[in-house]
Amino acid sequence: MIGGFRVVAEDATTHARAGELVTAHGVVRTPAFMPVGTAGSVKGLAPWELERLAPEMVLANTYHLWLRPGIETVEALGGLHRFMAWRGPILTDSGGFQIFSQASRRTLQEDGVVFRSHLDGTEIALTPEGAVEAQRRLGVDVAMALDVCPALPAEPAELQRAVALTSRWGARCRRALPPGGATLLFGIVQGGLDLELRRQSLAELVPLGFDGYALGGFSVGEPAEAMWATVAEVAPLLPAQRPRYLMGVGTVADIVRAVAAGVDLFDCVIPTRNARNGLLHTTRGPVVLKHARHRREANPPDPQCDCPTCRSCSVGYLRHLYLAKEAAAVVLATVHNLSFYLALMRRLRSAIIAGRFPALCAHLLAETQEGG
Amino acid sequence: MIGGFRVVAEDATTHARAGELVTAHGVVRTPAFMPVGTAGSVKGLAPWELERLAPEMVLANTYHLWLRPGIETVEALGGLHRFMAWRGPILTDSGGFQIFSQASRRTLQEDGVVFRSHLDGTEIALTPEGAVEAQRRLGVDVAMALDVCPALPAEPAELQRAVALTSRWGARCRRALPPGGATLLFGIVQGGLDLELRRQSLAELVPLGFDGYALGGFSVGEPAEAMWATVAEVAPLLPAQRPRYLMGVGTVADIVRAVAAGVDLFDCVIPTRNARNGLLHTTRGPVVLKHARHRREANPPDPQCDCPTCRSCSVGYLRHLYLAKEAAAVVLATVHNLSFYLALMRRLRSAIIAGRFPALCAHLLAETQEGG
Repeated sequence: MIGGFRVVAEDATTHARAGELVTAHGVVRTPAFMPVGTAGSVKGLAPWELERLAPEMVLANTYHLWLRPGIETVEALGGLHRFMAWRGPILTDSGGFQIFSQASRRTLQEDGVVFRSHLDGTEIALTPEGAVEAQRRLGVDVAMALDVCPALPAEPAELQRAVALTSRWGARCRRALPPGGATLLFGIVQGGLDLELRRQSLAELVPLGFDGYALGGFSVGEPAEAMWATVAEVAPLLPAQRPRYLMGVGTVADIVRAVAAGVDLFDCVIPTRNARNGLLHTTRGPVVLKHARHRREANPPDPQCDCPTCRSCSVGYLRHLYLAKEAAAVVLATVHNLSFYLALMRRLRSAIIAGRFPALCAHLLAETQEGG
Repeated sequence: MIGGFRVVAEDATTHARAGELVTAHGVVRTPAFMPVGTAGSVKGLAPWELERLAPEMVLANTYHLWLRPGIETVEALGGLHRFMAWRGPILTDSGGFQIFSQASRRTLQEDGVVFRSHLDGTEIALTPEGAVEAQRRLGVDVAMALDVCPALPAEPAELQRAVALTSRWGARCRRALPPGGATLLFGIVQGGLDLELRRQSLAELVPLGFDGYALGGFSVGEPAEAMWATVAEVAPLLPAQRPRYLMGVGTVADIVRAVAAGVDLFDCVIPTRNARNGLLHTTRGPVVLKHARHRREANPPDPQCDCPTCRSCSVGYLRHLYLAKEAAAVVLATVHNLSFYLALMRRLRSAIIAGRFPALCAHLLAETQEGG
């Protein structure tokens, strides 16, 4: 049944678990990483390339699609799935993160937020009801409630206001999109690094009966260690029978630690953005294409990787394409980095199911420190 | 045997022919269009995407690879085929065209040409022997002789000098790369729109015994009709038992007319450059993605095309990706435009073999006039 979430395995010594979330476009096997397709496209990837990578779910952005090409246009072109030629599950961010990232361009009020478009300055009023309605019309599998996501560090009063408004907006979102439909709705826990506020936020959201719970407001300026400590405390408090989603995170180390804390879903621009900047993630650490030592390196980026990039291209060739600003550099690096992230998630899931999670966890954290 | 060229069918009423050129990396079935991979990459295409498009041969550029990453680097990375992960035949331009296109950056002398790099101003001396040696080291299947290619219109004296120097350089190229090796060498006929000069150029080159003959110096500023008229006269004079290559041409109309004149090989940036500029070639005429009327067009670019882009994407989606400057727009449009060009060449070849070439020729020329 759509919205059903089943924990298929739990690690004995950590909070890590493997799960299955049923959506209208298929089952999402967790822990899972969602590639970011902000404007309806994972940057550089043809739809069939994304299909071959086979992520469990992809993320798109309501705010960006609202501005361009417009929700009506996506609807007219058959909804977001047909639009971007992706048959699997889609989750959309509500626009809440842009309240944070476009702070200079918006006015925050009780009713909602008014943006000036970063494209042409047009004013756009985003309310909780409007954000949810837009996501329903896009036809996504998982909609996110509209939240208020302060940058860190933030004053306690600002964090309190953000939590309170996120709760009121969360209630309005749930009313606008009641349970039982094809579009699931996740609530977003705020509260910064303040555990009491995080607990309060959670206590206000859970009675609203969301289909899943997200931890928002991380990776917004705080040290990684502070995030790890807070996620370790808060993630296990999220309802165990619902999927848990840590928004906008993160590095391999972030993900491994969060999975250990019981998080099921992730999204992050790191693999795709790093690809565009010529940084490849590999099991032997990062490969920075601009480094001169890679000029004549005939090996693939990661000898342990079986992605099409590693099967066909040397580091020297990728370096050449990157320096020559060839469009294929983005394609090839993105295919590899996403392959790396998706393989990581499959390894984590298999290890949880096989009872080998703590060992893998230790191995991966040691590896990332070395590769650093 | 490498270098062997067999005419498998000839049209009864035109000079069109279907052929097979044997190279070290496979047989090139002609007439054929070579996608342009200037710097060792067809812009936007992963190697496996190019492999799926399956062009008969691809073109790369000696001048660009010489400057970056350098011939030695390509050699160290296993030669151009392994470098760019392309197993099929490769033809390289010699650098002669850059004598024309980078006129402000070079000094032309009897011995060769001195360039200042468009990347960093470094001086590079390109001689006939050096150009051929570079191509041999790249490991390409077909090397082009170094030629002098004047922009049109040009003074008769300049055209005469270009023809004479091209002949002397051609002789030096052939001496530097004698027949019988793995790398074939094509000579380049110059002479602008002057039929007498073209005949003279050809008469000087044929005794040198090239593996194929190219018509250079077209599509360099002259009206299309003037090119068509000259090619129609000159192409049939090229040795019938060797492949004939019209360099840097062209539009569908150019190609159809040149095939009728007996040309076997083509290369042109039109499909790939137009793709990057949001223009799609289709059987119903050009689709310009920036046009507002395509905003909600749910059809694929070309309903008659079975390329992956047309199988998965609407014009509305492609328009969105183009306007949002998404990297996938280049990938998708390039895949389509090259599919269109390669399908055109297959249709022309099949028609020649089946005795239907004049009918197809008339149909295509009418279509391109309508489509504009």
